[in-house]
Parts: sequence; structure tokens; C-alpha cells
Amino acid sequence: MAKRVKGFRFAGMHSGIKGSGAPDLGLVAADEPAVAAGVFTKNLVRAAPVVIAERRLKKGLCQAVLVNSGNANACTGKAGHAAALASTKALARELGVAEALVVPASTGVIGVQLPRRVIDDAAPILARSLSAAGASRFSHAILTTDQGPKTAQVEVTIGRRRAQLLGIAKGAGMIHPNMATTLCFVVTDAPVGRPFLRRALRQAADETFNRISVDGDTSTNDSIIALASGQAGGGALDGRGKASRRFQQALTEVLDQLGQMIVMDGEGAEHLVRVEVSGARSDRTAVAIARTVATSQLVKTAIHGCDPNWGRIVAASGRAGVPFNPGTTDVRIGEITVFRKGAPAMNKATERRASRVMKTARYTIHITVGRGSGKAHYWTCDLGHEYVRINADYRS
Amino acid sequence: MAKRVKGFRFAGMHSGIKGSGAPDLGLVAADEPAVAAGVFTKNLVRAAPVVIAERRLKKGLCQAVLVNSGNANACTGKAGHAAALASTKALARELGVAEALVVPASTGVIGVQLPRRVIDDAAPILARSLSAAGASRFSHAILTTDQGPKTAQVEVTIGRRRAQLLGIAKGAGMIHPNMATTLCFVVTDAPVGRPFLRRALRQAADETFNRISVDGDTSTNDSIIALASGQAGGGALDGRGKASRRFQQALTEVLDQLGQMIVMDGEGAEHLVRVEVSGARSDRTAVAIARTVATSQLVKTAIHGCDPNWGRIVAASGRAGVPFNPGTTDVRIGEITVFRKGAPAMNKATERRASRVMKTARYTIHITVGRGSGKAHYWTCDLGHEYVRINADYRS
Repeated sequence: MAKRVKGFRFAGMHSGIKGSGAPDLGLVAADEPAVAAGVFTKNLVRAAPVVIAERRLKKGLCQAVLVNSGNANACTGKAGHAAALASTKALARELGVAEALVVPASTGVIGVQLPRRVIDDAAPILARSLSAAGASRFSHAILTTDQGPKTAQVEVTIGRRRAQLLGIAKGAGMIHPNMATTLCFVVTDAPVGRPFLRRALRQAADETFNRISVDGDTSTNDSIIALASGQAGGGALDGRGKASRRFQQALTEVLDQLGQMIVMDGEGAEHLVRVEVSGARSDRTAVAIARTVATSQLVKTAIHGCDPNWGRIVAASGRAGVPFNPGTTDVRIGEITVFRKGAPAMNKATERRASRVMKTARYTIHITVGRGSGKAHYWTCDLGHEYVRINADYRS
Repeated sequence: MAKRVKGFRFAGMHSGIKGSGAPDLGLVAADEPAVAAGVFTKNLVRAAPVVIAERRLKKGLCQAVLVNSGNANACTGKAGHAAALASTKALARELGVAEALVVPASTGVIGVQLPRRVIDDAAPILARSLSAAGASRFSHAILTTDQGPKTAQVEVTIGRRRAQLLGIAKGAGMIHPNMATTLCFVVTDAPVGRPFLRRALRQAADETFNRISVDGDTSTNDSIIALASGQAGGGALDGRGKASRRFQQALTEVLDQLGQMIVMDGEGAEHLVRVEVSGARSDRTAVAIARTVATSQLVKTAIHGCDPNWGRIVAASGRAGVPFNPGTTDVRIGEITVFRKGAPAMNKATERRASRVMKTARYTIHITVGRGSGKAHYWTCDLGHEYVRINADYRS
């Protein structure tokens, strides 16, 4: 981690939740109650920690986030709810803070009871190992089957002061078949007011984590939690003025970086692709088209096969359930036009060039559906392995 | 084919659209203009034959359906529309019927122009080879990468007479990555009135073809067309009375059988699974839950792995976007309860029994979400191969 974020300490350890011996318990603690906000899964079935975290964050203050991996504490009924409460109680006692200021988050297998005694036993050790330099240990403790930790840091200038934003996330995707997927934590020492932090987080999440897809399955545990210590100094940001805009941009940048890392960690993913829709009647229309193309199995297998199969892209756009005129639609892969005004525009030479673009690790598919001002993007990846071999090699 | 359907003849041949030499051109012809109805893809991007067929079927009469495989004639612009019109014109001339009574249907690669001359040359041969016993040849001519033809026949008693319903379909799924997918044709000699045939087909399709999923990608060419010659005799069915109800049931039965065959022909599918939702506030709510579970990649990989992973089923239900109380939700696999009133209900013994159910070729997953009267089902299959190996073997 390049720079520390004033006012925060981190810890990560193996407590025994995972049988493998890997780190499975993490803690973020603020020196003082921090301004806080969260966004949570829209799944109707919500894990116990999600219910508790959302309720405790309503007041906009939080001093500690306790995260376990290896167990989602989802679909565990009243016993699971009680276990989540007990874990935050044990931690609050160790830290000497109010229980209501401790927020839980869990990720792992669904439907298995959280081992309360394991966390009780680990709480004192975890609290003692807190360190301003512990973010890396924390970033490992929240992983499940991720290939590695995911962190992003951005610096922002507020007046004459510099503030840090540090984001730490865990991945989602078909590599987590039994897992409740995304968790993300952002800490900042910027002086952010409570209503603004809530708005800023919601907007940033909407433009980043809500625009990524690996497998289309929304989990029971998805949570993003942001904490602001204010220790960088300066007047509180309330959403107005240049400094607030810069903070909003920096927060979006942190989440955008983490979101892309999560997509790249999808099952066997070799290509990170931005699906960019423009010319739609509204942003909402553009989002619907981008989402449908980004989640289409047929498009994702074509991406894996480096096959500029625009037919699949156009067909997926058409089933998005929103109005546009196929007759004015263009598709470009990178800068290569493959479909123009509703008709094929690809010859042998451009097919080769488009395929070359698709062999790169990261590129953009542009879909222009008209002359409207609506636009949106989605990040997606290819679908790999034998499943893909069968689907992507069809043309051969 | 067990019994002939009075008033209809069929043909199928290789014309040269496919390079492989496989049959690629089929024809259904009625002796006289038949009462006709069609339902078509909801994709905004529609192939030329879909646009023409829908327009021509508006009047409720049709005398011939010309079907080619190997070319979807989708995303082909004005030239594609002209080619579809030309093909029906050539056929109408050979049959000596009005052009407006000939309906086209296409399936195959998207974005390639239909070879007009090939169909022009084949039209006389195709017309001459029509036979009341030719349904099998027709059923082969409409296939793309299907593993085999799909036909279903049901007999229905109307008054003292017996009428036949014969349905012929082609498959959909990830085994058709570059294909426009489902086509289905039903012929009957029952005396069905035009408005009733339209209503009956729409309702039957809604309960059958609109309740199957292989990969979630709606094609540009999906079409179901029904023709009724009336030659079984008797008074016209208008939707009232016992005979109309029996016809409706028989039509639904034919489409249900074909729909199940299509799902079974999905990529490497080894299990045909009925997802049955009951106790919902409304049928609409139940459909949304059933569809979300049936299309979930995580559920479909668990089905492949014979893993009674009810967490995935509950999590998918929760993201269906409709209201229900997870706390009153039960899940059964076959007759084995694995989740009861929002909490785990599986022990080692029931897990083994549930897994044994999942090793069979065909079973039902029951999801009871409350005490409402809303219910619905969806047919789905497992996801196979390496893709699945990675996802289904997670627990091992």
C-alpha cells in the first residue's frame, strides 16, 4: 500500500472458519466514529450481516467493520442473525466501542451456521493486531476463491490538503459457485459530510459496481461500505463545489478500478471488454442494451473465440426490451465498423482486423443505436474453457 | 409418423443453401387455404421472414409454409427482405396459389444474404415431391445443429370425430451459437375457427415455449405457425364448449412435448428439470421466480453436478424482482425437503437422497414461497462440460 489513510487501522488473520488455514477474519477500525455509508444487494434473500449492517449504517456513523470469509451467514434463520450480532458484540467489547458502531460483513458458503465461538476466541487477537499498515493483511482475509487481493488507491486534493481514498474488494463470478460474492470497503481521510457520503457512494456504485457482470447471479451478501475519518482536515464536503466534485470523481475511480479487477477475475477470463452504448433515447435505454449485450452467453463466448460475430451483438441488443431503431444501428469493435445502418459492413479484411482487436486483453465494443443523447457502458468478460470451446469454435 | 393429418402434404430436400449436403429446404402445403395463426419472436431485431410471415398471417389464412435452414436471413437489410419475398413468389407460382398465402421461415447463420437462385431452382422439385407421408423429410430439412428431428402427435376427439395434431420443431440452445433458434409448425385437421386458433396458439405457446430456457438468448427468428385444414369434419371450434377445451389441451400438449425435446437438446444436457413455483401472490410472480431459477447459471451447474445446493435456488429466487417472504419459503428436490420456512432442512441422509433424485434424467424442483394461489413452471437443463466441471465440482 503506497500511502496510509489517516484515522484507520486494519487487521487480518486465520481464525478457523476456513478449514484450509487461509486468512478468514478481517477488521477495519477507525480511531473515532467515522462518517459512514453503505449500499447493499438488491436480492430479496439477504444474509444476516447485510440486514444488520444496513440498519446500523442508517445513522451514518461507524467505527469498525468486521468481515469474515468462508461463511456467508445467509439463509441461516434466527440462529444466523444471533451469531452475527454476537460477533459484533465480542468485537465491540475488545475495541471498547458501542456495539451499534460495529458493522458485520460475511462471504462464503450459504446455509451453514457461523461458528460463534471461533470468532469470540479470535476477537482479542484481531483487535490487538490492528495496524495502520495492515491493509494488505485485511485484503487477503476477505477473499474466497479469488486469484488474489483487489485494492485501489486514489489521492484527491481538497483545498490545499491531500486526502487518500483506499478501496479493498473481493471478487465475484463463476469461480465462486457456492459463494456469496462481492464485498467492497472504501476508507478515506477526506472530511466528507454524512448525506454527501451516502449520495456519493450510491452514485459511484451505480456507475461502477452496478455496471459489471460475470455471470448475472446477484448474491445474498453484496455490500459496499465507505468510511470517512475526516483526518485529512479541511471543511466538510457537502456535495457542492469543486472539492466535492473531485471527491466524487476519486470515489468513482476507486470503485471503477476494483470493479474491473473483479470482472478480470471471472472464470478463465482472458478479455476485459467495455460494452459502450450511445445514441439511445435515454441513459436508461442505453443501460438496458449494454447490460443485455454484456450478459449474453452468446456474446461472451464470441468474445472468448475472438470472433467478430456482430449478429450476436445485434440480436442481444434487440432483446433488451427497450425501443431503438435497428435500421440506424452501427456496431464497432475497437475502431473497426462491422455493422452499419442495420446491414452487414464487414468484409474479409475488416473481419481480420476486428478479430485482431479481439485478441487483445482489453477493448471496447461500441453500439450506436441512433442520434439520441442516451449513453452507458458495462464491463464484461469472456466465458472460458470447454463450455466456450464448443460455443466459440462453431465457425471453425 | 403414426397418423396422417388430412389436408396437408410435406416435402424436404437439399437445395444447396448448406454446404454440407444436408437437407435445407422444407415445405408444408395445404390442399385448400387453411385457417392459420402464428406467434413470433419478441426480439426488436427481426429477420425478414418473420416480418413477412406475421403480416401475411394477419388475415388468418395460409396455404403453404416454406422453410429454409442454414441461413437465418436476419440483419440482411432490404436485400434480405426482397430475397424472402422472391422465394415465396417462386413457390407460389409452382403451387398455383396466391403469393400472400405462402409464408416464409428461416433459420441458420445471421447476416448472410439468402441465395435467391438456389431456392428458385429448387422450388419446382420441392413442389413436385410433396406427399402426405413427407412429414419426416420436412422435419429433417428444418434442422441446424440439432441432434435429431423433433415431432409430437396428439389425437383429439371432437364430437364423434377424431382429429390429429402434428407438431414439428427445431431446437435451440448453446449448441446453436451462430443460429437463429426455434421454429415450430403445427398442422391439424380439426375444424378450428380463425379467432380461436389465434387465441389457442398464443395461450399454448405462453404455457410451453415461453417456459423453456437453454441459454436465455432470444433469437431473431423464433416462430410458431399453426395451420388447420378442418378436414376432420364437424362444426367449427370457436373456443366455447368441451371440444374447444380438448383442442386447446391437445395443442398445449403438442407444444409442451416439443418444448421439452428442445431443452433436452441443449448443450451436453443430461437432465431435464421442471422448476415448479407455487404459493405465490400471483401467477405472474410465480413465473418470474421460476424463470430466474431456471436461467441461473449457478443453479444449472448445480443440476449438472447433482448437487442439492438449495442456497443457489433460494438466492436466485430472491433476485427475481418480485415480492415474497423468504421466511415462509420451502424447497423440495423431487419429494425431498431441503429448505423449510427460510432455514436449512437438509442432513447427511436427505442430502444423499436429494442427490439421488438429481442423478435421474428428469425431475422437479418445487419452490413454495407462501400460501398464495399463484403458480407456474419452467423447463430447464443442466450446463455441461468443462465449464460445468469447474462450477459443479466446487464442493469436492
